Amino acid sequence: MSEFRELTPELIGQLTAIVGEDNCLVGDAIGEDYARDEMPLYGMRTPDAVCLPASTDEVAAIMKLCNDNCIPVTVRGAGTGLVGGCVAREGGIVLCTMRMDKILEYDERNFTVRVQPGVRLCDLAEDATSHGFMYPPDPGEKTASVGGNVSTNAGGMRAVKYGATRDYVLAMTVVLPSGEVLELGPAVTKTSSGYSLLHLMIGSEGTLGVICELTLKLIPDPQADTSFILPFADIETAISSVPSIKLAGLNPQSIEFMERDIVDSSADFTGKHVFPTVVQGQEAGAYILVTLDGNDEDEIFQRAEILAGVADEAGAYDVLVVDTPSEKEAVWAARSAFLTVIESEADLCDEMDVVVPVDSIAEFLGFVHDLGEENGVRIRSFGHAGDGNLHIYCVGNDVDRDDFVSRTEKIMDAAYAKCAELGGQVSGEHGIGYAKKRYLRESAGDLAIGLMDGIKRVFDPKGILNPGKVCR
Amino acid sequence: MSEFRELTPELIGQLTAIVGEDNCLVGDAIGEDYARDEMPLYGMRTPDAVCLPASTDEVAAIMKLCNDNCIPVTVRGAGTGLVGGCVAREGGIVLCTMRMDKILEYDERNFTVRVQPGVRLCDLAEDATSHGFMYPPDPGEKTASVGGNVSTNAGGMRAVKYGATRDYVLAMTVVLPSGEVLELGPAVTKTSSGYSLLHLMIGSEGTLGVICELTLKLIPDPQADTSFILPFADIETAISSVPSIKLAGLNPQSIEFMERDIVDSSADFTGKHVFPTVVQGQEAGAYILVTLDGNDEDEIFQRAEILAGVADEAGAYDVLVVDTPSEKEAVWAARSAFLTVIESEADLCDEMDVVVPVDSIAEFLGFVHDLGEENGVRIRSFGHAGDGNLHIYCVGNDVDRDDFVSRTEKIMDAAYAKCAELGGQVSGEHGIGYAKKRYLRESAGDLAIGLMDGIKRVFDPKGILNPGKVCR
Repeated sequence: MSEFRELTPELIGQLTAIVGEDNCLVGDAIGEDYARDEMPLYGMRTPDAVCLPASTDEVAAIMKLCNDNCIPVTVRGAGTGLVGGCVAREGGIVLCTMRMDKILEYDERNFTVRVQPGVRLCDLAEDATSHGFMYPPDPGEKTASVGGNVSTNAGGMRAVKYGATRDYVLAMTVVLPSGEVLELGPAVTKTSSGYSLLHLMIGSEGTLGVICELTLKLIPDPQADTSFILPFADIETAISSVPSIKLAGLNPQSIEFMERDIVDSSADFTGKHVFPTVVQGQEAGAYILVTLDGNDEDEIFQRAEILAGVADEAGAYDVLVVDTPSEKEAVWAARSAFLTVIESEADLCDEMDVVVPVDSIAEFLGFVHDLGEENGVRIRSFGHAGDGNLHIYCVGNDVDRDDFVSRTEKIMDAAYAKCAELGGQVSGEHGIGYAKKRYLRESAGDLAIGLMDGIKRVFDPKGILNPGKVCR
Repeated sequence: MSEFRELTPELIGQLTAIVGEDNCLVGDAIGEDYARDEMPLYGMRTPDAVCLPASTDEVAAIMKLCNDNCIPVTVRGAGTGLVGGCVAREGGIVLCTMRMDKILEYDERNFTVRVQPGVRLCDLAEDATSHGFMYPPDPGEKTASVGGNVSTNAGGMRAVKYGATRDYVLAMTVVLPSGEVLELGPAVTKTSSGYSLLHLMIGSEGTLGVICELTLKLIPDPQADTSFILPFADIETAISSVPSIKLAGLNPQSIEFMERDIVDSSADFTGKHVFPTVVQGQEAGAYILVTLDGNDEDEIFQRAEILAGVADEAGAYDVLVVDTPSEKEAVWAARSAFLTVIESEADLCDEMDVVVPVDSIAEFLGFVHDLGEENGVRIRSFGHAGDGNLHIYCVGNDVDRDDFVSRTEKIMDAAYAKCAELGGQVSGEHGIGYAKKRYLRESAGDLAIGLMDGIKRVFDPKGILNPGKVCR
């Protein structure tokens, strides 16, 4: 790894010549947003410059210049990350891809779409639907960039049926740290043609190369979908229904869980009470939200009858059909707003995004709630019950920052150890970034981290790309 | 890369001490099978020794010994490969995993199974079914080892709906060339925890590490499935129906194509005429075989009506339902026997396994048939129409070997260039091995091959593992 150098006025001039005056920000022109992601607890730093290139060629020119001059480059999409991944901790430039925001071309006979990395997930989803397709990855944060989603292998609500972002990336154009342009994986759905550099790039969090174009797989848009709310007495009972739902062959599009506490906050925030709190005279303590999709509503309702049987046997108070478009929108808007709700209520916030085996979710959640009580920190959680991916937040109000950090660190240390013990993973979809490096090293072990470091050196010998993140 | 050394009697003694006398073969004890795979045209070499370890510990001890002494190690499963991947071209030892053939444990609540790499695909498929699950990857060669399937990312017939082997590998135990043991990816279905070493291992054809244990994802066994034979006038018309079938939202488990010629040979070979040759008074020239699966037969037959409409519009002579268990078995046995049929009829055989975009299949097949005619070589083909993966064979009888090789080389050169032009990939599921290295280099380019070489050096600094394959 080389010593990084300072960004001189001369180099700023050269960057400006590449991207144009309006698209190379320095000094006060750099907004506060460029200093952080959505989890400012993990550190902030204003970069020396922000470049907003409009094309692969511009990205290549920026990278060559920075590589030749040992200037660190941190790639940023919409900045909706939660692990400090897009923070330029070593200074240098932030390369923001949000001007590369075009949906370039649909190939309707081969079910693919070519996009630039700065397209927002919500825009892609809507546009795909208008073409009769579905882009299945559906993380809660709809304003994230697709490039960022690929960089973290984001999963989302529909991963239990359709898989994570990884499963929808067929090809990409990558600019290496050297400025060389690499085309990975012609857009076919199946390949056994050498080491999968494509899969290595997916989830590499901007440390191996800059994603400049993506070819994504689409599927025919399901003709119908219906959601079902299953209220339970408590989270343990709710979670214990999940393996039965999965085993019943219903192939649900999503199986989400949420605790009553967060549902109440969400209702206060949005002003809409979409999850019933008292069902058949009984107080609901937790919910499972299931969506079934398919070719037509009749077929879905056949499966819904099976779901009703399974739910009843698992102790659900009822199975509430969410069938009108407005109800559906309200329920999923509430679900998508959970993180915003948590952030809006908390002065300080720390998070974990572990994955545990589906049958260990209840045990793990109980463990973390106990940790919260022991350490005097409020725990809030929701997540993807179908695939064991839990979003757990430590929140603090009217507390001293250092005290909060030291309490949450105790919780995190114990929780990640428990997660490893259960055979889980550090992150399901948020990534490692800067915040979770230590936990990745503990969980993956020195041998695996050594191989990752070696791979990093192959792609980025000078270590200029997103330094200090993931492994190295 | 180090100079390889000779396998001395002393080293053979040490290998024997690791695996036991019966499981370290030398000299005449080494059967001819260990010198080749199913495509002997790509070269044969008897290794200096064959070791058959029974455990991860034994594999680790073998690797450490060979790494310390610079002895090449070529890993072999069932030897059903088609690109010379398991041939010990540089001598040294063949490490055969077929004694590690246990299905270790089902986790029925988390839908996974742990297996050793030497389990045969047919045994795993049958065992999973008996537990109420399906292991979706379904390559034609059912006697292949699961470890080999993972090493080549085998796809098979059901990939169009369920994805390739890559999509079912959740975790693995790998022995690195150094003898160190690496555990990759606790068995959860979603992760964003550092570079995916797991995905790098999948499809790496035994060049980065030795797979010693696998945790595989299962799905609930579909309650019902029915196949449908669609006869067409010719292959162009047959293939042109595929995008419409895919767009109709039927989500077929498989969409296979076969030319009349191979169907006739298969009927001669098996003695069973399962594909009708004359349909409604018209001679069939090609077939599409579609399988729909689902929860019950009513639901499948609802979709079958849609299929019938699509097929009619696309020019199919009929839609023939294959519904009795014996018919179903006969049809799929015929399909699975195609390669055996081709091999049994040919003195000499060369193959390609390209993937092209679904809407380019007909064009590519026409191009290769023309090449066959120009060069006086018979071309036979079948494959996975749903994902564009074509198995194309050049076959020769009563011809001079050198002459055959020079003719097929011309065909291959032109065909791979055409494949690249269409945006295709060198191999869909057979891999690169030794035979397709040149075509991979041409298609992937020097930059990508350079990165692969770098990755190879990170995992295997001395280059002892399966030398001369894939990239280096």
